Amino acid sequence: MLRIGVLTGGGDCPGLNAVIRSVVRTASAHYGSEVVGFRDGWRGLLEDRTTPLDIAAVDGLLTRGGTTLGSARVAPERISNELPQMKDVLATHGIDVLIPIGGEGTLTAAHLLSQAGVPVVGIPKTIDNDIDETDLTFGFDTAVSIATEMIDRLHTTAESHQRVLLVEVMGRHAGWIALHAGLASGAHLTLVPEEPFDIEDVCRLVSERFARGDSHVIGVVAEGATPRPGTMDLRDGGVDEYGHRRFTGVAQQLGAELERRTGKEVRTTVLGHVQRGGTPTSFDRVLATRFGLHATIAAHKGDHGQMVALRGTEIELVPLEKAVARLKTVTPSRLAETAAFTG
Amino acid sequence: MLRIGVLTGGGDCPGLNAVIRSVVRTASAHYGSEVVGFRDGWRGLLEDRTTPLDIAAVDGLLTRGGTTLGSARVAPERISNELPQMKDVLATHGIDVLIPIGGEGTLTAAHLLSQAGVPVVGIPKTIDNDIDETDLTFGFDTAVSIATEMIDRLHTTAESHQRVLLVEVMGRHAGWIALHAGLASGAHLTLVPEEPFDIEDVCRLVSERFARGDSHVIGVVAEGATPRPGTMDLRDGGVDEYGHRRFTGVAQQLGAELERRTGKEVRTTVLGHVQRGGTPTSFDRVLATRFGLHATIAAHKGDHGQMVALRGTEIELVPLEKAVARLKTVTPSRLAETAAFTG
Amino acid sequence: MLRIGVLTGGGDCPGLNAVIRSVVRTASAHYGSEVVGFRDGWRGLLEDRTTPLDIAAVDGLLTRGGTTLGSARVAPERISNELPQMKDVLATHGIDVLIPIGGEGTLTAAHLLSQAGVPVVGIPKTIDNDIDETDLTFGFDTAVSIATEMIDRLHTTAESHQRVLLVEVMGRHAGWIALHAGLASGAHLTLVPEEPFDIEDVCRLVSERFARGDSHVIGVVAEGATPRPGTMDLRDGGVDEYGHRRFTGVAQQLGAELERRTGKEVRTTVLGHVQRGGTPTSFDRVLATRFGLHATIAAHKGDHGQMVALRGTEIELVPLEKAVARLKTVTPSRLAETAAFTG
Amino acid sequence: MLRIGVLTGGGDCPGLNAVIRSVVRTASAHYGSEVVGFRDGWRGLLEDRTTPLDIAAVDGLLTRGGTTLGSARVAPERISNELPQMKDVLATHGIDVLIPIGGEGTLTAAHLLSQAGVPVVGIPKTIDNDIDETDLTFGFDTAVSIATEMIDRLHTTAESHQRVLLVEVMGRHAGWIALHAGLASGAHLTLVPEEPFDIEDVCRLVSERFARGDSHVIGVVAEGATPRPGTMDLRDGGVDEYGHRRFTGVAQQLGAELERRTGKEVRTTVLGHVQRGGTPTSFDRVLATRFGLHATIAAHKGDHGQMVALRGTEIELVPLEKAVARLKTVTPSRLAETAAFTG
Repeated sequence: MLRIGVLTGGGDCPGLNAVIRSVVRTASAHYGSEVVGFRDGWRGLLEDRTTPLDIAAVDGLLTRGGTTLGSARVAPERISNELPQMKDVLATHGIDVLIPIGGEGTLTAAHLLSQAGVPVVGIPKTIDNDIDETDLTFGFDTAVSIATEMIDRLHTTAESHQRVLLVEVMGRHAGWIALHAGLASGAHLTLVPEEPFDIEDVCRLVSERFARGDSHVIGVVAEGATPRPGTMDLRDGGVDEYGHRRFTGVAQQLGAELERRTGKEVRTTVLGHVQRGGTPTSFDRVLATRFGLHATIAAHKGDHGQMVALRGTEIELVPLEKAVARLKTVTPSRLAETAAFTG
Repeated sequence: MLRIGVLTGGGDCPGLNAVIRSVVRTASAHYGSEVVGFRDGWRGLLEDRTTPLDIAAVDGLLTRGGTTLGSARVAPERISNELPQMKDVLATHGIDVLIPIGGEGTLTAAHLLSQAGVPVVGIPKTIDNDIDETDLTFGFDTAVSIATEMIDRLHTTAESHQRVLLVEVMGRHAGWIALHAGLASGAHLTLVPEEPFDIEDVCRLVSERFARGDSHVIGVVAEGATPRPGTMDLRDGGVDEYGHRRFTGVAQQLGAELERRTGKEVRTTVLGHVQRGGTPTSFDRVLATRFGLHATIAAHKGDHGQMVALRGTEIELVPLEKAVARLKTVTPSRLAETAAFTG
Repeated sequence: MLRIGVLTGGGDCPGLNAVIRSVVRTASAHYGSEVVGFRDGWRGLLEDRTTPLDIAAVDGLLTRGGTTLGSARVAPERISNELPQMKDVLATHGIDVLIPIGGEGTLTAAHLLSQAGVPVVGIPKTIDNDIDETDLTFGFDTAVSIATEMIDRLHTTAESHQRVLLVEVMGRHAGWIALHAGLASGAHLTLVPEEPFDIEDVCRLVSERFARGDSHVIGVVAEGATPRPGTMDLRDGGVDEYGHRRFTGVAQQLGAELERRTGKEVRTTVLGHVQRGGTPTSFDRVLATRFGLHATIAAHKGDHGQMVALRGTEIELVPLEKAVARLKTVTPSRLAETAAFTG
Repeated sequence: MLRIGVLTGGGDCPGLNAVIRSVVRTASAHYGSEVVGFRDGWRGLLEDRTTPLDIAAVDGLLTRGGTTLGSARVAPERISNELPQMKDVLATHGIDVLIPIGGEGTLTAAHLLSQAGVPVVGIPKTIDNDIDETDLTFGFDTAVSIATEMIDRLHTTAESHQRVLLVEVMGRHAGWIALHAGLASGAHLTLVPEEPFDIEDVCRLVSERFARGDSHVIGVVAEGATPRPGTMDLRDGGVDEYGHRRFTGVAQQLGAELERRTGKEVRTTVLGHVQRGGTPTSFDRVLATRFGLHATIAAHKGDHGQMVALRGTEIELVPLEKAVARLKTVTPSRLAETAAFTG
């Protein structure tokens, strides 16, 4: 019997609530353990704001988007500077193991705590799918599904009006959402951060499609896509208070340039937050539930300093250290697959 | 046995293809009549570009978004100036009755042709639901459904991060989409063109919700919403080549102002073209199919100069003249209903 | 300021929770009135089981299927026999007006109470759309949407295997769901209770479609559909304890007969309870919310013995007496519309 | 430059058309190769019925359910007996490599042809996910998604009426669909073929849930689930003409028995063919597209006698011989995961 702490860090993500439910159900039904939730991510741990989590508290969470614990971004320095206070708070609540659920930032913080001697089992979470050492993260399938469904809808509008339609999707510094949504929706063009685009290539593709009688062009543009240096000016968004590069509406700027250069009518849709909210797909619910189950088992077995990961069909444990060493970005072989369907 | 011409004018709209299918099936199966489609709206009639429409040509159209005939906007003057040429083209193809499917502009043009002696039966189409004399137009239910589904998704994100989320929806000069999507999604605030908003009221509502412990605010903003004169500056978009006022991203501007004044985190999502594409809802498929059926019956009965309309549960005919006399905007009693759920 | 009682009777229906929320929000926010819920329909009133309903209690109900108050069927005699006890319970709780939400049975009971002097405002509810004096009831659009989505899926299977696929949909003694789902999904055949079918006509339609090279046949069969007497044997299901005729799987029996007579492969899907559960469509959420609002206004205005109804675009009041005089079934003109798309 | 033959065998499956499109686009755009489709699975090859497949022929197939080539079941003996004729037909059409897309039966036949010297690259397809040597097959995610969405809907009905709801899902001799849909929908009970159920355990679970005040029970029952011998009688469906055991409606029989033994109201829904039709999920579209791409690359590289397979995040080749050696059924460790959420 343990006392387990749970927190959800970073942006919200479909499946977070399903993980929380899974941790609580596994901990209480199978180990008779107690679970305490920290509110608003690391901030709850820094500021000692908690909420008890029992089986009644997680009823109905499986299908609900967002996170019932709340989430907030915290500057990375604050985590490293205030480690002692965080350990005090954990001690006050008698927490035996902490299960932080989050993306790169949260897992890096989890690793810091682990190095500082706190028993930690991390759970990777991000719609962007950019966490290394796991085949997939929950939230990604939901984001791709929504983007695909929206792009399906745009096809008929583009066809009816012989237009170019650019759709900007999320993904931060990785092109996974764009890549999958592009393949799934039959996009004619997919731009990802991993391969800077040449505006002239884009114009050529558009012109060639119309020249051979095609009715429209659908382009999927990752928010992190950038032009090859010197080929097109893109406003510089600078960096935010956490040191992340700000995205600046690349699709909008590309669309204007494209319209100017090709003379074709271009429309842009920025999908935005709809990609990260709402009920998770069945795929993400299963993955989130399994992550929560295995993290809780690991917590009780004493497999600390680890992160749960999907490898093939199984959930395995990988050292947090390896998982946070680098971001997982789109590989050349995956880019080649998408290139096969471009045009 | 007649030869019927069909065209689809204005922006695309879920259900257009369902109407085309319905007209063709009714005309050929029940009257042995032939149907000719004009391509790209009135432009096809002005430029004599046609396509034959038989039962095989409309196979599978019931569920498909967009319009297989294409659509394009044409300046209203061109319609009135080139009436004689259009009558010539109709004569060349031996068209007995023309069935134009479209919104305000298309139906006004239809009325012109009708006055000029062309047998016409109009079918109202618009996601905006702003055509008078009919309870509803097809496309509207699909647009509201998509907007509602997207807003459902935004609720959980807003909750998880204690944010204000503004969603800009379509509707042009009418607030119907905003009104229905707002009611359907439990928005805390709905802004429509029919009632200019006061930025201070909006700020107060936001502050009061957070003050009494509510986790978030969802606002639905019609693209045509405007601030009460003198209360907030809104960029002027001018008018487009067809004389329509250009929308200028009111939600984005309101969001910035709101963030500045209340200090709360505000995010804006502009749903854009996803609201008008893709497969129609079952409601819109039924309405589109019934409109096509009754327009074709009217065409054969000689009930010309009319528009089909939904009145209660029945499809009736109304004079085109009455239908185009004014836009149907949100009534005070409907505004009062929405006000009952504000806050 | 009043005390209002609410109950939900009969089968569950998407939108019930949205009505409850609307009644509570309107009553408390606009009139400062209190709302008491009776549990499990009339049974809660007969057995004095209540639950207080305040704004916190209805949070999140807009999108949730089912009824938070529970529902149960009660034999009609019990209602008429135990009127005095019910009046006592209402008096005990100080209920000024009762708002029963339900279908034919519930509204008939509401009428009885009204005649016995209880102030009542009824709200019509049924996925079957068979309540008279209102254009539509909430729940119906959701049921039709689900059925249509499922039939869309069956089309491709039927095509791939050159099969006949029969889909049994709900609707009890009315064919509305079948009629709308059939039109919306492009069914080749729709069988409703209002027009008994001739097995030979059905066989002929199937054979003719395959004979002229069509790939498949989709038939929508209302659960209440029956063969014309003497043309095909249908098991008799007898009546249930409430005096309702039991449905006996007409689609399954028709499918077997059809396979035997035509030699074609026939598959049957009975959609069942999925048609009545889950989140309501945006259409039903709006209708349910407006019904709740106007019923609460009527309750406060003293417009008792009435039922709220959709007439065109407006919510009006009709006497309960008129509303329960007869079931609304599919009219000949609507049957003719569907016939135009048969084959 | 090659001539490639394609056929789709067995039951239809979301994603088949996406594979066909992918093969044709890859073959023609990247290798200048030609593709010939055989109609109705192996029957087209046995009876020499073909259709040319070029880029225009596969336009729009990505999102369409079913298979444009048709499919039909063929007795396994016919394949082995008529190998010479099939080789003749392949020779007549100058087919260099055959790409059969199908499940266990089709891949076994593909293996036979390969052993007989025909260059073959197989593509695994089944909603049941029971093909060995690949992490997943396309169609499975769509089937699980639909089942989950339907079970989500049933939850609210079951709650409102305090019922037991049993949902029978597909999967043949494997419990994968039941397992994933059960986890994804928060079912209280999941019965799969891999672990025969004890009717007394099921009754106990149901009674315990109601005894501790839970409102309802949702059970997911795989069509291949069976009672532990001697614990409950199940009708014997015998075997069909292909030697497969016929399923006999286990959910219906279990429901009746459960109602008899526990006295609780039980309803059963058999999801049926809706699980295998309609547009594939984005997940399945991506997997199907990648399978088609890599199979076509293998065909051109001379990697014959192989099957494409998903391993982790990559598409790899595995010998057909290994892939068809046994069915992939649910493992004990996966059963244990589900057991953790039972009750």
